[in-house]
Amino acid sequence: MEKEVIVFRYGHRAYRDERVTSHCCLVARAFGAQKIIIEGPVDKTVKESVDTITDKWGGPFEVVFEPDWRRSLKAIKAQGYRIVHLSMYGLRIQDVSHQLQGFEKVCVVIGSQKVEKEVYAVADHNVSVTTQPHSEIAALTLALDRVFDGKELEKTFSGAKVSIEPQQQGKKLEKV
Amino acid sequence: MEKEVIVFRYGHRAYRDERVTSHCCLVARAFGAQKIIIEGPVDKTVKESVDTITDKWGGPFEVVFEPDWRRSLKAIKAQGYRIVHLSMYGLRIQDVSHQLQGFEKVCVVIGSQKVEKEVYAVADHNVSVTTQPHSEIAALTLALDRVFDGKELEKTFSGAKVSIEPQQQGKKLEKV
Repeated sequence: MEKEVIVFRYGHRAYRDERVTSHCCLVARAFGAQKIIIEGPVDKTVKESVDTITDKWGGPFEVVFEPDWRRSLKAIKAQGYRIVHLSMYGLRIQDVSHQLQGFEKVCVVIGSQKVEKEVYAVADHNVSVTTQPHSEIAALTLALDRVFDGKELEKTFSGAKVSIEPQQQGKKLEKV
Repeated sequence: MEKEVIVFRYGHRAYRDERVTSHCCLVARAFGAQKIIIEGPVDKTVKESVDTITDKWGGPFEVVFEPDWRRSLKAIKAQGYRIVHLSMYGLRIQDVSHQLQGFEKVCVVIGSQKVEKEVYAVADHNVSVTTQPHSEIAALTLALDRVFDGKELEKTFSGAKVSIEPQQQGKKLEKV
């Protein structure tokens, strides 16, 4: 059975975070998640740019906005997802990745600026990637890689209009 | 012997790219590179924010600006570094990661917007992470993880003033 993976982006701020949140969406899609939920009112710039990519490169992948993170995370949890909150302060990912790989339904939570204490409590696992300050995009990338045990790199996308034929040099984009 | 790894950020644009380039710097540091070279004139905002992190969380890690990418990449190559250019169009990283792990000196090149053809030619390896559109921060993260074969997660930093004691819940920051 294919794993069901959702990414939850906590604390998105319109305008200021658009570019970083767009990266998070594209990473979620490319590294095997089926959906990203973004806290806050609908940000059309983010949604349209990501939907355009999904339309061209394939899916399924969904971008959803959710004003109430508490209600949303509780609903996800009630559906049987394990909540994995990425935080610099959590347990080292290399110590828990075996455990993460065992779950069929995972919701990876990534913060932006300051994260409320309650998020740590709602999470089943608070997990750190390197225990150093860096980037929520990087933390998400490595966490998805560990959740899927590297198999996300083999993912194929449905309904793609184009795909890449890998080359040592040059670019080869094929129409599908 | 510890691997010598440099990250080369191609096509940085002042102001517009500051946040994404800062993420690239912090990822380079946290995931085991000793240096990032950024194409373009000195961008004080980026340099100062990253140097502040290195001062507090440890190093060694250096942020350098270089106006002439051709000269810089050629000099790096002459010092025995393998040039690994990350591009959506390159060979799949899962097919070349064994090879990458064999190199003692690696320079990982990440682009921003449009990359000139010549970069593909200067590179010893053009490598793709997922062959899907996403984020140079994510590509860098996964590439460094594969270059170091996961061992970057165990890296310790010299001269750190603080470090994190990993926790299942809460935050524990220790003075070193």
